[in-house]
Amino acid sequence: MSLVVVGSVALDTIETPYGKTDEILGGSAVHFALAASIFTEVRLMGVIGTDMPEECLDVLNRPSINLEGLLQKPGKTFRWSGRYAKDMNVRETLLLELNVFGDHEPEVPVAYRDSGFVFLANGSPAHQGRVLDQMNQPLFAVLDTMDHWIKWDRPGLESVLRRVHAVVVNDSEARLLTGERHLTAAHTMLQMGPEYVVIKKGEHGAVMVTEREAFVIPAYPTTKVNDPTGAGDTFAGGMMGWLAREGEVTSKTLRRAMAYGTVIASFNVEDFGVRRTAALTLEDVDRRLNQFREMLAF
Amino acid sequence: MSLVVVGSVALDTIETPYGKTDEILGGSAVHFALAASIFTEVRLMGVIGTDMPEECLDVLNRPSINLEGLLQKPGKTFRWSGRYAKDMNVRETLLLELNVFGDHEPEVPVAYRDSGFVFLANGSPAHQGRVLDQMNQPLFAVLDTMDHWIKWDRPGLESVLRRVHAVVVNDSEARLLTGERHLTAAHTMLQMGPEYVVIKKGEHGAVMVTEREAFVIPAYPTTKVNDPTGAGDTFAGGMMGWLAREGEVTSKTLRRAMAYGTVIASFNVEDFGVRRTAALTLEDVDRRLNQFREMLAF
Repeated sequence: MSLVVVGSVALDTIETPYGKTDEILGGSAVHFALAASIFTEVRLMGVIGTDMPEECLDVLNRPSINLEGLLQKPGKTFRWSGRYAKDMNVRETLLLELNVFGDHEPEVPVAYRDSGFVFLANGSPAHQGRVLDQMNQPLFAVLDTMDHWIKWDRPGLESVLRRVHAVVVNDSEARLLTGERHLTAAHTMLQMGPEYVVIKKGEHGAVMVTEREAFVIPAYPTTKVNDPTGAGDTFAGGMMGWLAREGEVTSKTLRRAMAYGTVIASFNVEDFGVRRTAALTLEDVDRRLNQFREMLAF
Repeated sequence: MSLVVVGSVALDTIETPYGKTDEILGGSAVHFALAASIFTEVRLMGVIGTDMPEECLDVLNRPSINLEGLLQKPGKTFRWSGRYAKDMNVRETLLLELNVFGDHEPEVPVAYRDSGFVFLANGSPAHQGRVLDQMNQPLFAVLDTMDHWIKWDRPGLESVLRRVHAVVVNDSEARLLTGERHLTAAHTMLQMGPEYVVIKKGEHGAVMVTEREAFVIPAYPTTKVNDPTGAGDTFAGGMMGWLAREGEVTSKTLRRAMAYGTVIASFNVEDFGVRRTAALTLEDVDRRLNQFREMLAF
């Protein structure tokens, strides 16, 4: 079934203990789309400025990514710059320029409106709501958000939370939103509307909670972490890509989808930006998924 | 096969956001023994003072715990007092009085010396080494330690690390010992002697690493955490109890053993001190292990 992602397309300048890059392609919609495209066609919605170097976009030119919804507007592309500390869980944002992304009002291309699967990457709740307004009753709409919106537009966020089937947030966001941790935070979020709550815990894995069940998955253990940027969006992309390919959301498909998301995120962090994810094949992913299964067996 | 534990027997005064207790039975050897006794007979080595209230020890009077190695000496029992912050990962030690435990030179009862499985709970490396001197070539000797010994007796610790089959530490200790994190820390510790390295990550689970494999297990997700004291010793007790019952250490038995340790630790934190663990049956544990398996399946 078809899948659409709405999010940022960015130029990222990243410094980690293992290297530094200047203005490479990044953004939530990009990380998501490259991960999802391993499994299915993904329709991308985003905006870039006139300064985006053409070769930066080359990596998105593939049959499994539909770029009809990627608009170019006069002005500068969204820019983010960050520096990771030695333990990589701590990062400092050095620069955040929304530029053309700031007041971009997303309009869903007519050809995208029948998408069964929708991922609203982090963005303003108002914009997320307006994307949903334009969709034709998706089977599975999923929302990501971040501390900014929890702090500054809680009513808007609560309103759009009531309209999605699932929410994907990291553990600090879940805590900020609910004042609770872990399962308690997840159960509180279920009361806010979504049927499924997925909490990402970075190097500690993820949990998925519904009224009926809990699913727990650790991160794939790796010593090779060169750039954590985009791991969460890659996880979501792998998850949604697999679900869209399967065409239905059940406990079984969602668990497998999260395992795929986990594995693809573990590749993503191995190299800067999208370099590793863009080069992944389904065979690479399945091989690591099998290794992961062995690491978890008891 | 027989199992011996050498560690502390304490009177703990604990305050958490969910309650407070005065001078209840605690200590590494106690938490360990109660967990291990679910699976096998466990031989306990420790020391108490003349002030230990008799009824405090009632919980240890069971056929599956051998108390021949529990000595009483003139003086006061080891006391620990701590207060947990709201998020329970942060605790403050309010009082630590080693008392009779401080200069106690452990002597292994003759009847214990043939034990196939040995657990050296946190204690001075010199004492841990002297216990090993007295044992008759155990099949599987395992060492726990803590930041104090890593900082103040690294040569002693390194010396005893070369003599054990496995080491069990928490993630901050692994980091202090090696200057590394996660798998890298584990691999560095393998170079120090042990064939198996187990790193406990509290609410984030545990990993086991050898030269040949890695095993990853999340914590059992629970919303009911009233007192985290002793969770690590309970984990180790469940693990070693199962191994001793199986009588052999293989990838398969060790993985299952860690799963049991995880599950028993999740019970331990539900109530203060050893109250919950002391009341556990094998049926309780197996029921939760099965629920846990379902939560992990994909």
